[in-house]
Amino acid sequence: MTDDGQTGSTGDEKTAGILIIGDEVLSGRTQDSNLSMIANELGALGIQVIEARVVPDIQERIIEAVNALRQSCTYVFTTGGIGPTHDDITADAIAAAFGVPIGERADAVAILEAHYPPGEFTKARRRMTRIPESAILIENPVSKAPGFQLGNVFVMAGVPAIAKAMMVSLVPRLVGGPKMESRTVGAYLAEGHLAAPLGDIQARYPDVRIGSYPFYRNRQFGVSIVARATDTERLRDAVSEICQAIRDLGQEPLDDVG
Amino acid sequence: MTDDGQTGSTGDEKTAGILIIGDEVLSGRTQDSNLSMIANELGALGIQVIEARVVPDIQERIIEAVNALRQSCTYVFTTGGIGPTHDDITADAIAAAFGVPIGERADAVAILEAHYPPGEFTKARRRMTRIPESAILIENPVSKAPGFQLGNVFVMAGVPAIAKAMMVSLVPRLVGGPKMESRTVGAYLAEGHLAAPLGDIQARYPDVRIGSYPFYRNRQFGVSIVARATDTERLRDAVSEICQAIRDLGQEPLDDVG
Repeated sequence: MTDDGQTGSTGDEKTAGILIIGDEVLSGRTQDSNLSMIANELGALGIQVIEARVVPDIQERIIEAVNALRQSCTYVFTTGGIGPTHDDITADAIAAAFGVPIGERADAVAILEAHYPPGEFTKARRRMTRIPESAILIENPVSKAPGFQLGNVFVMAGVPAIAKAMMVSLVPRLVGGPKMESRTVGAYLAEGHLAAPLGDIQARYPDVRIGSYPFYRNRQFGVSIVARATDTERLRDAVSEICQAIRDLGQEPLDDVG
Repeated sequence: MTDDGQTGSTGDEKTAGILIIGDEVLSGRTQDSNLSMIANELGALGIQVIEARVVPDIQERIIEAVNALRQSCTYVFTTGGIGPTHDDITADAIAAAFGVPIGERADAVAILEAHYPPGEFTKARRRMTRIPESAILIENPVSKAPGFQLGNVFVMAGVPAIAKAMMVSLVPRLVGGPKMESRTVGAYLAEGHLAAPLGDIQARYPDVRIGSYPFYRNRQFGVSIVARATDTERLRDAVSEICQAIRDLGQEPLDDVG
């Protein structure tokens, strides 16, 4: 972390915000998995997710969140609310957030006309062709109804298999940043024992972001130390010191403890 | 949804915001499960989660998010960042958000002194006794280091087993609201077919919140319809109409399709 409280170090850093739209996630009915999927795809490109929000299917709340995130992040990714039913209001909300008109888009209509059998392209399904003006479509190889990109905001489906396919298809549009490499080292040690040496290592490696994540498994506490940095050598040196600190406490460092 | 774009209907509605604190969730390394756990506990009390945010381990970002949520929600629940290591900055951030002093709390020190074997209550572990002034402790039956409540904000651990235990121990402090009952009906139908009758039912039951959630399983699309309301009879009537709409499309409604 730098003095001004921002993550990262260089001016060409790329950041992302994720907006998960849906009552079902806030009610606890559905366990979201799109956040980690998107974060992992972006991490591989050197784009760091700096905030995520979950909002209900209410237009004002979607507008407020997307406008906040598109100001503070290089890219914004939304999931949910682009299907054919009455509660699918994301496309209209995004258009309203940008202040642009929305209507049926000819290329989206053509995609769905070609996809559905005769008579199956219902009025409800036409709803999925409502795309904000000047948006660029995002291909949906799973169920065809497209997502879209408007400015720096990428609007995707909520069904995980479709969100993943859309994410893969839009990746070529993204400009990556300095790639954050990550190493994880674990130990069946209490955090309280490793905390002092770890704080000391963090102080000497301000350019390496070191996180300590306790876990509780088989009635035993352990800790995963995650070190992330854009500089491979600095990362290697920090990890080597972390491993030594674990050995100094009489344990052998473990890989991939989760 | 009412005309002013807010969820719910009555003045005694209770709402909650959830703040998940931790680089590990934003990086995609850890799949959060606390949001759904907390939402389910609160739902049983008639408290509706209306927003969730995920922020990194950066003090300014935690302060900004907790201050936004504690204004807009009856209750706020945070998870993560209250352990003994350098990246555990939540307690200090919450104190700063409220503008109150923070220091070692005698009752928290007593709990941990009694818990650890002689010599094991390290300086790093003393960090976990830093509690903002005037906060009320939240019991931690799993690993003892307490959470705390300051105003309407409840600060809990990130480890799911500990977060769950803390949630259970703080529930008696919460004042519930009108309980939202929920019914789920499914069908192996495309959303596009059910969308029109469903929109019609939603229009006639504005006091029932009807969500449509497509799923994709065994290479087959289906849909779960979730209806939620505080009025049992209205909910039953709406669900009965939804079931009839599914039968009109030649399918039998399914319970618990997930």
